[in-house]
Amino acid sequence: MRNIRIGMIGCGVVGQGIMRLLKENAASIEGRLGGKIEVKRIVARSRDKDRGPFVPTSLVTYDANEVLTDPNIDVVVEVIGGVEPAYSYLKRALEAGKSVVTANKALLAARGHELFELAESRGVDLYFEAAVAGGVPVIRVLREAFASDRITAVRGIINGTSNYILSRMQEAGIDFAPALKEAQQKGYAEADPTLDVGGGDAAHKLSILAMLAYGAKLDLAQIPTSGIDQVNATDIAFAQRFGFVIKPLAVARALDNGALDLRVHPALISKKSVLASVNGALNAVYIEGAAVGPCLLSGLGAGAMPTAVSVVSDIVDVGRNLQRDSGGRVPQRAFHGDSVKALRVQDIADHRCRFYLRFSALDRSGVLGKLASALGDHNVSIEQMVQEGQHGSQPVSVVLLTHPAREGDVRAALSKIDSMDIVAEPAQALRIEDT
Amino acid sequence: MRNIRIGMIGCGVVGQGIMRLLKENAASIEGRLGGKIEVKRIVARSRDKDRGPFVPTSLVTYDANEVLTDPNIDVVVEVIGGVEPAYSYLKRALEAGKSVVTANKALLAARGHELFELAESRGVDLYFEAAVAGGVPVIRVLREAFASDRITAVRGIINGTSNYILSRMQEAGIDFAPALKEAQQKGYAEADPTLDVGGGDAAHKLSILAMLAYGAKLDLAQIPTSGIDQVNATDIAFAQRFGFVIKPLAVARALDNGALDLRVHPALISKKSVLASVNGALNAVYIEGAAVGPCLLSGLGAGAMPTAVSVVSDIVDVGRNLQRDSGGRVPQRAFHGDSVKALRVQDIADHRCRFYLRFSALDRSGVLGKLASALGDHNVSIEQMVQEGQHGSQPVSVVLLTHPAREGDVRAALSKIDSMDIVAEPAQALRIEDT
Repeated sequence: MRNIRIGMIGCGVVGQGIMRLLKENAASIEGRLGGKIEVKRIVARSRDKDRGPFVPTSLVTYDANEVLTDPNIDVVVEVIGGVEPAYSYLKRALEAGKSVVTANKALLAARGHELFELAESRGVDLYFEAAVAGGVPVIRVLREAFASDRITAVRGIINGTSNYILSRMQEAGIDFAPALKEAQQKGYAEADPTLDVGGGDAAHKLSILAMLAYGAKLDLAQIPTSGIDQVNATDIAFAQRFGFVIKPLAVARALDNGALDLRVHPALISKKSVLASVNGALNAVYIEGAAVGPCLLSGLGAGAMPTAVSVVSDIVDVGRNLQRDSGGRVPQRAFHGDSVKALRVQDIADHRCRFYLRFSALDRSGVLGKLASALGDHNVSIEQMVQEGQHGSQPVSVVLLTHPAREGDVRAALSKIDSMDIVAEPAQALRIEDT
Repeated sequence: MRNIRIGMIGCGVVGQGIMRLLKENAASIEGRLGGKIEVKRIVARSRDKDRGPFVPTSLVTYDANEVLTDPNIDVVVEVIGGVEPAYSYLKRALEAGKSVVTANKALLAARGHELFELAESRGVDLYFEAAVAGGVPVIRVLREAFASDRITAVRGIINGTSNYILSRMQEAGIDFAPALKEAQQKGYAEADPTLDVGGGDAAHKLSILAMLAYGAKLDLAQIPTSGIDQVNATDIAFAQRFGFVIKPLAVARALDNGALDLRVHPALISKKSVLASVNGALNAVYIEGAAVGPCLLSGLGAGAMPTAVSVVSDIVDVGRNLQRDSGGRVPQRAFHGDSVKALRVQDIADHRCRFYLRFSALDRSGVLGKLASALGDHNVSIEQMVQEGQHGSQPVSVVLLTHPAREGDVRAALSKIDSMDIVAEPAQALRIEDT
């Protein structure tokens, strides 16, 4: 069997992890592939960076052309992240007939379909297990293990930073800002955490999962996204009293009417749910198939080595195809939208669920009645209520759980309530995910 | 692309589920395979059985030769179970150059290596996702997703019948016999439950997992196996007081000394462990990789439709290989023992763990001292103790948790204690699994 010759673009912690894995597990990988994986060239950006003990200086270049134009390179591995220049590089690689392994969720969410079409037209592979949930093999499970089933729902905790922060808020009873600071100090959050805590990163990943599960060609703007930065310690404490924890959730659900329910947001989920016990930087994805039922995958969603495992396993898989001259053996179109009827994304206003509502109520007589009336006027009925704090000069917290209600109705009621003189600040509203 | 023509041997509930899935998801499967799956022939056993609405009578035969000798059949799907005649059938199919998809764990545990070697020599595929944990894709994850990693441990709940029974004992506070009866009434246990509750079924599956994780060629007799029938309601109640639940566990762990720690037995695991929340007929497998860390897979481990999903997804995968003429693209040897150095299985007497010990102590003075001395004489030290029942004419339960101890030492101490006149019956000993 032939060896598989790779060129790697990117030499950060994941790139170094890939080199480490290729070295430490060389013998078992060769047995499982039926050939060696040879790294021919590594494209680095900065000349003076420490690249650790697994990157031979002799392989390093600063010119991506040395990988993209080398006819002796079979597979381009991209671990730089971001849409450009990654898109241009991978386009050129695919056009040159090279297969590609990437961990780049932002790129796939933004321009994946173009790249998948290109790969299909050239009969080469574009693999991306590491793009979602790090070392958790959710891509392979959707694409292969459940290829025979009809997926009805995918629900996941797919942003480890957000999960770490909410877990710390829950454990320590602290607010968002100090939990974020702690996450940054421990390396779980970036200096600019916007993409993680704002939900954008999870939306990138969800669009990839929805593509695999439903053949949905999505624009990121179609995914209603809200971040965990809106959650505070008070909400977590109240949620707990009602038997919930707050988790950073991403949902892609096939509705009976043919539309897709897509959402990224902090959600209250029952403490009894298995997802409730997925804490810290762990990721978890619950896949529900019409035939297979619910299936949970959970593990480390980030980190150099878990991500490297997914990348190198993809290289092995692509390598098995190259050895048998069977590049493109998994048809892309069925997973990437071309053969699937146009899917409609449900307007978030039409989403129905129970809601957690927290009001900062002023000490006026009849405040509860006024809240209940405003909600009732919009077809929102109350399931449970708790009120905390003494009436007096300070506002008191009134927390309600609603029965299942249409989101548009809830928003209309809250808009009305926010304009009333019985509340001191805008209401907090969080969705409850009942599974 | 060509269509994939299959012959199915077996037409029970799983076979019917396969036919249902092939019909209901025909369009999406065709898109994902790039061709149709055509069922050419189905081998049934009894002539007068109801085969449900998805098995066309025109396809049914009672002669396996019609599948095994038909040159127009590409893939033989075997869902009859048991070693014979399945072994003879599949040997002939592979010899005839057909690929095979099977759900038969007993066959693979007993004679898998012969069949894998045969498949490899003929350049065809032998796929078996459904053989372990039903719809939970643990085979694919070990063989593909973690092909780049070194597996350090596999721990699982892989017998749904045993898990259902222990879960019911836990929930309802009932003993083994009524819980088994209930499981039989609900269809979770066979009329003869020996293979499930005795641990044999889990040992079959564990040998397959160990083969994939470590390339271990195992004889079933090498796996120390004990069943859940030794557990009673008293043990479950005491375990709970110490913060544990009792689960039917299967373990395959790579030890630092190069040996494999293999075991199937009921184990006490911490209530805080994720496995503790895997209840009812669910299966779960925890895979630990040196690089990827811990990864949990959980879902329905049995049932016609979850099993059918795994079988049909295997057919899709094998079909992708057939279309590209890349049968045997996943090298078998690395996973099935030939290329891996001989692995030693640890003598269970050398296993070290904490133990749960329950004694039925007679009302003699100094009984605790005598128990502690006998244990101490064999290097077994006590971590916690609880004693229940009034001293008097009835024996009292004395339950101890030990510090980590060598199993051989514990057994020797218990043998000594069982012969003493301070106990009314032999001691109960259960392993605690600390992860």
